Amino acid sequence: MANYVPALDRLVEEFRKMPSIGTKSAERLAFYVLSLKDKEIQSLIDAITNAHDKIHQCKICKNLTENEICTICASGKRDRSVICVVSDPRDVVALEKTHEYRGLYHVLHGVISPMNGVGPEQLTIKDLMSRLSDNTVKEIIMATDPTIEGEATAMYISRLLKPFDITVTRLAYGIPVGAELEYADEVTLSRALEWRREI
Amino acid sequence: MANYVPALDRLVEEFRKMPSIGTKSAERLAFYVLSLKDKEIQSLIDAITNAHDKIHQCKICKNLTENEICTICASGKRDRSVICVVSDPRDVVALEKTHEYRGLYHVLHGVISPMNGVGPEQLTIKDLMSRLSDNTVKEIIMATDPTIEGEATAMYISRLLKPFDITVTRLAYGIPVGAELEYADEVTLSRALEWRREI
Repeated sequence: MANYVPALDRLVEEFRKMPSIGTKSAERLAFYVLSLKDKEIQSLIDAITNAHDKIHQCKICKNLTENEICTICASGKRDRSVICVVSDPRDVVALEKTHEYRGLYHVLHGVISPMNGVGPEQLTIKDLMSRLSDNTVKEIIMATDPTIEGEATAMYISRLLKPFDITVTRLAYGIPVGAELEYADEVTLSRALEWRREI
Repeated sequence: MANYVPALDRLVEEFRKMPSIGTKSAERLAFYVLSLKDKEIQSLIDAITNAHDKIHQCKICKNLTENEICTICASGKRDRSVICVVSDPRDVVALEKTHEYRGLYHVLHGVISPMNGVGPEQLTIKDLMSRLSDNTVKEIIMATDPTIEGEATAMYISRLLKPFDITVTRLAYGIPVGAELEYADEVTLSRALEWRREI
């Protein structure tokens, strides 16, 4: 990649740092940027600066927001007795799309992962605990990813919640709706059997 | 995608405009940008502005450069009697990697494509013709992509070159037909240069 002009090499390098962008994609993006008109470049840069400057974590739930408190926490229509704990802001978006959940959220911004040097203190667990002091919260739904690290994080937090008079629940495991049974992995199938319900 | 904060939505939109970036990738890139520190954001923005401001076409060969004349055209070590005609600056990089070619280049910035409304006048064909007036050029290698449009462009240009006392050659079909030049490996490209034939 030292064959281009320096300014181009540098731009390719910047794009290569981005997640799931390899050299070829980075080159494609760099050439795309070169093809942009002044106005389009400005729009791209504005969007980057704007997002960087305006977006921060909600004071309460740590979800991303442009305000001090996010729209979900600020809403009068949400059930304040339930908190759904997720690892990533994208999970909030996914859950909101169901239109089924009316409670609040808490975004951990990661999962406990000793392999990657992420301990409980790097997550927003303390902020979650401080939300419980006024006894409004009756249920906490652990909605971390069903991965080893997601599980471990859910277990860790639920242990911390033991002393409180709070019901701690976990999203159901099972076969994804629309999937074919024969392609489900054994762990998922075992869980689906274990979590079966009377109909 | 109307579930995020506006500044984030806008950033995702900007990334979605980029080639081969879908919604999920755009979201991933936007979250990556949000995770950057002030200094890293500045470095990204600088790289974009810098590339946009500094890079333009070489006065002679229309390849990308930061100077008035690109390093290849300015070099005293290149064979000025041969011009290799390519459609894209990335093709120059690919050919340079073979270390086989010592001549000059001419970048068309596209191929003739009536389907996409690209006619000969949108390409740098006139600039190529004006490079032939001093009779230094003895051979022109047509190295457009071995696609229908690349072929048509090569044929079009070689017809224009008929009146001149210039040998017009075409890269040999060492290049897999239907592939894009920039993805060809160096050995294949070297062979293609070695086996070029008069057309």
